[in-house]
Amino acid sequence: MYINVVSHYLPKTVVDNDYFGELNGLTADWIVERTGIRERRKASQEENTNTMAIKAVEKGVEQLPFPVESIDLIVGASYTPHDTIVTLAHAVQHYLQIDDIPVTSVSSACSSLLNAVEVVEGYFALNKAKHALVVLAEHNTLYNNERDTVSGHLWGDGAAALFISKEKFQETDLKIKDIKTGGAATAGRGTEGVVLKPFKEGIAMPYGRDVFINACEYMPKVTKQVLDRNNLGLDQLSYLIPHQANLRITKNVANRLKLAPNKALSNIEYLGNTGCAGCAIALSEHKDRFKKGDNIVVVVFGGGYSYGAMLLEN
Amino acid sequence: MYINVVSHYLPKTVVDNDYFGELNGLTADWIVERTGIRERRKASQEENTNTMAIKAVEKGVEQLPFPVESIDLIVGASYTPHDTIVTLAHAVQHYLQIDDIPVTSVSSACSSLLNAVEVVEGYFALNKAKHALVVLAEHNTLYNNERDTVSGHLWGDGAAALFISKEKFQETDLKIKDIKTGGAATAGRGTEGVVLKPFKEGIAMPYGRDVFINACEYMPKVTKQVLDRNNLGLDQLSYLIPHQANLRITKNVANRLKLAPNKALSNIEYLGNTGCAGCAIALSEHKDRFKKGDNIVVVVFGGGYSYGAMLLEN
Repeated sequence: MYINVVSHYLPKTVVDNDYFGELNGLTADWIVERTGIRERRKASQEENTNTMAIKAVEKGVEQLPFPVESIDLIVGASYTPHDTIVTLAHAVQHYLQIDDIPVTSVSSACSSLLNAVEVVEGYFALNKAKHALVVLAEHNTLYNNERDTVSGHLWGDGAAALFISKEKFQETDLKIKDIKTGGAATAGRGTEGVVLKPFKEGIAMPYGRDVFINACEYMPKVTKQVLDRNNLGLDQLSYLIPHQANLRITKNVANRLKLAPNKALSNIEYLGNTGCAGCAIALSEHKDRFKKGDNIVVVVFGGGYSYGAMLLEN
Repeated sequence: MYINVVSHYLPKTVVDNDYFGELNGLTADWIVERTGIRERRKASQEENTNTMAIKAVEKGVEQLPFPVESIDLIVGASYTPHDTIVTLAHAVQHYLQIDDIPVTSVSSACSSLLNAVEVVEGYFALNKAKHALVVLAEHNTLYNNERDTVSGHLWGDGAAALFISKEKFQETDLKIKDIKTGGAATAGRGTEGVVLKPFKEGIAMPYGRDVFINACEYMPKVTKQVLDRNNLGLDQLSYLIPHQANLRITKNVANRLKLAPNKALSNIEYLGNTGCAGCAIALSEHKDRFKKGDNIVVVVFGGGYSYGAMLLEN
């Protein structure tokens, strides 16, 4: 299967570190040193996961090499839902006005991109779909407590859309060679590390250090597993797109994979942690820099815990 | 693929119609006449979708014809999440202590049971899993406004678990012969009929009549489509398990399918609308009454809108 188009949308409002300095007394330097984050985006009052997903889809549709009506599956992903009944996938179906196709949304927290793509892989294997749309959006600032000095400054908003087909349409299509996902709720503080109880307390990260340790453990491990089973060595990895949680995690993971730091693509510096949309936004931002034959691994780790790696070939 | 075991859990507290009489001035007779509902269950302060899912799984594990460690995929479903990061699927993985298997949760509102089973079907087709666990739980009363005279009296809490394998283990296994799901966000007031905005207003059903009309339209239609493509006539349908939203919808759907009313299985009278868990609970309650060769259709319709039908053979 192939990623034909990937697009993204970012809300206009930029929140810099000084904002948290005024609010919580955290200095901009302290935030940068600990997280790499200099600024993040914040959705407006009128925006939410559904509207942001539609904006990302709008941009993608412009580049689509087949009629939009051919889309026969929509899978959404978000852990910061505007509506758990009319999910972002349903909102996008309504926007595209395509009747009677399978539509659902998933959450495995920050890992959901790969769970969604793996669901698509299943529909393709069943011959129940040929042209899937994966939409990802996080409205972290809706559920975030900005006064939380532990994690209030980490989160940003954003959305992305991946149009995925069974067949190749154009030279620029990225081949999805392999996907592996896994739950790690049995590891460390898997069920407590990061939580989002929508009714009660929003996002909280009471065990940030445990999340850090496990992210640095699982992301290199699953990257190697996916490279191994495709007979690729670490030296054949052209680019890594890790979950955008913290620049220190990204550097740690790149280091464990013996990858030059500039080969681990990152947007956390200017977007913060945009949840399950982060890697997809990075893919959208960097797609044009890949050369023929490049091997790219998208690797994720999320609360819950859950993880996954997807091997792409340009 | 086969449903080896199906189990369910109901919270202890029973809320009868008199409660809403005192609260909202609705008479018990008026509620029964309009909805069929006489009582519903309410989770305790300590319970939530994650704990209820675990309780349902506990009961199922006792009947499992293979070692629980063989489970290699967990798919959760809920639109009333306790935690959107540590979802019910992740909580169940942690409870079962099975490492490194794919784990995710879906929402297509009240239709999610069939979306979850279709996701399992995909993993089986990919040979990425052989023994899946689908867990469904709704904590409607958490997000419900009991003072809402339109829909406050409709909702109940409950959970179910389906253990599904590629192969047959025992004579009582139900064969899943076919599944079809579809989004209908393009129909009627698909994106407004029923909503659950967790951050703002909880569950609301501002266009109940539109939901009613579309449920009565889509559930018979997709039932016929699935029977048709399996060369079965309406007269070969032994039992229908429709989404448990309203007894008038169930009767209307049975009537359109020329089915005797007692062949449309129902628990709404004593459980209310338990969301995506409703049909699975009914399947768990009635599994023992099916005879060899019975054709059973589970048919769902949910907010968003979305729908689906699953053909089972005993």
